[in-house]
Amino acid sequence: MGADLFSIPTPRVVIDRTRLHANIDAMQARATRAGVRLRPHAKTHKSPAIARKQIDAGAVGICCAKLGEAEVFADAGIADIRLPYPVHPSNAARVQALQDRIRISIIVDSLEVAREWAAIMRRSGRALEVLVKVDVGFHRCGVNPDTPEVVDAIREIAGLDGLRFRGLLSHAGHAYHARSERELQDIAAREAAILHQLAVQLRDIGIAVEEVSVGSTPTARFIEEQHGITEMRPGNYVFFDRTQVGLGAAAVGDCALSVISTVVSRPAPDRIVLDAGSKTLTSDGVRGFSPASGHGMAFPGLDATAPDGSIAIERLSEEHAVASVPADHPLRIGDRVRIVPNHSCVVTNLADELLFVDGLSIVDRVPVAARGRNS
Amino acid sequence: MGADLFSIPTPRVVIDRTRLHANIDAMQARATRAGVRLRPHAKTHKSPAIARKQIDAGAVGICCAKLGEAEVFADAGIADIRLPYPVHPSNAARVQALQDRIRISIIVDSLEVAREWAAIMRRSGRALEVLVKVDVGFHRCGVNPDTPEVVDAIREIAGLDGLRFRGLLSHAGHAYHARSERELQDIAAREAAILHQLAVQLRDIGIAVEEVSVGSTPTARFIEEQHGITEMRPGNYVFFDRTQVGLGAAAVGDCALSVISTVVSRPAPDRIVLDAGSKTLTSDGVRGFSPASGHGMAFPGLDATAPDGSIAIERLSEEHAVASVPADHPLRIGDRVRIVPNHSCVVTNLADELLFVDGLSIVDRVPVAARGRNS
Repeated sequence: MGADLFSIPTPRVVIDRTRLHANIDAMQARATRAGVRLRPHAKTHKSPAIARKQIDAGAVGICCAKLGEAEVFADAGIADIRLPYPVHPSNAARVQALQDRIRISIIVDSLEVAREWAAIMRRSGRALEVLVKVDVGFHRCGVNPDTPEVVDAIREIAGLDGLRFRGLLSHAGHAYHARSERELQDIAAREAAILHQLAVQLRDIGIAVEEVSVGSTPTARFIEEQHGITEMRPGNYVFFDRTQVGLGAAAVGDCALSVISTVVSRPAPDRIVLDAGSKTLTSDGVRGFSPASGHGMAFPGLDATAPDGSIAIERLSEEHAVASVPADHPLRIGDRVRIVPNHSCVVTNLADELLFVDGLSIVDRVPVAARGRNS
Repeated sequence: MGADLFSIPTPRVVIDRTRLHANIDAMQARATRAGVRLRPHAKTHKSPAIARKQIDAGAVGICCAKLGEAEVFADAGIADIRLPYPVHPSNAARVQALQDRIRISIIVDSLEVAREWAAIMRRSGRALEVLVKVDVGFHRCGVNPDTPEVVDAIREIAGLDGLRFRGLLSHAGHAYHARSERELQDIAAREAAILHQLAVQLRDIGIAVEEVSVGSTPTARFIEEQHGITEMRPGNYVFFDRTQVGLGAAAVGDCALSVISTVVSRPAPDRIVLDAGSKTLTSDGVRGFSPASGHGMAFPGLDATAPDGSIAIERLSEEHAVASVPADHPLRIGDRVRIVPNHSCVVTNLADELLFVDGLSIVDRVPVAARGRNS
């Protein structure tokens, strides 16, 4: 395309194509080794072009968070989409319109809502694939597996005419708060144990549990140690970010997404101001048990493989990032840096387009087609 | 348009048209009373339709943060745009293209950059309007007014062929960290005093300082007490938000922007989950000296004038908001709430379109035309 990262207007979100492909292949290889299906969550990239690469590498389909996203991916020809989200029955017309075109499944975590969905689907003469969301410790959505009623509730859901019960699904979001590798491993083990125990109880009373689905990038590396899992749904791994580095899921050199930014002010010898603010990077903090803070790491010279030279962003305004530097630091106004952000999923949600790069050369422009499709 | 807030897919960003107009009129009346020009910052709404309302009410023009925004507003016919941003000279071609169509001005906070701009402009046979950004305590961009060199530097800038020096500009962003009304008032007073003193010094040596420009919504209410100011540039006031309420700049009833959201899960009697997460509300915290925390206030029944019934959002995932409620709280899955967010400027930056409402009825759809134009 002729342009390189020194000539484009900044800030700009770029994807290292080589790393992206390596990340896609590595996670697929891990799933294959563990004997589980990989169904990546597309919320990270929101880009049909990247979903296609994941499917070409062996993924059985994708996940979307919201119906609006699923509609974009269905339009782009992705044929099997799971929404691990408690989609409300007021959206039935949109779900049915998707059923006309693709295979779609959702989660339920309420018997009442399951009954409502079943009644709607019966009236339309169809069935809706559902999985029951199980709370494995994140305490967001999901049925509580420790209550005595849970097996009875799932039994009723599995028997509802108008639904087709597929199995159990969980998301160990609390993995992002793990304070050590050991704690992360325990969270993954406990997630698998809870789901396996519940699946056994259900199978014992004759309920077919075809799918036992887990998913998060930080727990994905323990998949081979887990028992009874049929599907994994990591999303962030395509790009990684500073939080995944902090959680031991990736090295800085694995991060495929970065933000190219320009030094726009150096009002004092020890302070630089970059043109990427919270409207590019978001205010999401960094997590992980490796010590880290701030709003992203800026690498002078656009080289994120030289972490010794990196600069921590200390504060963000909407369109400015501020960092302290030694008074003799060589960065000057007009110089460019590469920022590895704290959280890549929310960064893509602010970008209309991702620039694919090979080194410093721009090789492709990929629209974030499902950006902002949050309803 | 027929639809109301109970029938649209959620989450959705809505603007109360009556409050928007009241906010625009109130700030214009304040500027007029104080005898200063109002040049609102458009970063909050990023919508030419709203900029037009501000200009129709008496604003002399607008501010944009980035050239990309200015290009959108210029396309929409806004004829006078100031960028209180240290635009780098590598963007000269875009600045000159804007000069062909509208009146545009930028800030500089570096003598070196000012010389670079001047050289570029001389070669093109034009002049660029600039203001010098002064650091009044926020310590982001801006020349340090306490250094002995500052007057000499501004004298040189004002004399550069290729530039047309207009005056001084500041942004007291540290007002957002004020811990009391008194501290806020002191920040505003100090900002005005610093600029006035510098303007007097410059005028004493024969430099014309036509413009002395300040701007932030929390300090705007002190404009009538400030001396020597010619222009104010608040942005957030069109919508307000929880932070402005916390800083005493608005009441909850003044907040024109809110997010309509649906309860999608109630996995435990004391926990509700809403469908608006950080990809709608952002992770921006709340500020202000009134005690507040969390990620926004949710009002059942879509009525944000009944704050006794509000629920604080405790945590956000990308597509979920989680809040604790009393076990007997009447909210049920499928019910809708109105969320007043912490920071409205970043919420519009995630929305393609704003729904204008009159009560619960949708009366207009306004594109956020400059959303994502961050470069």
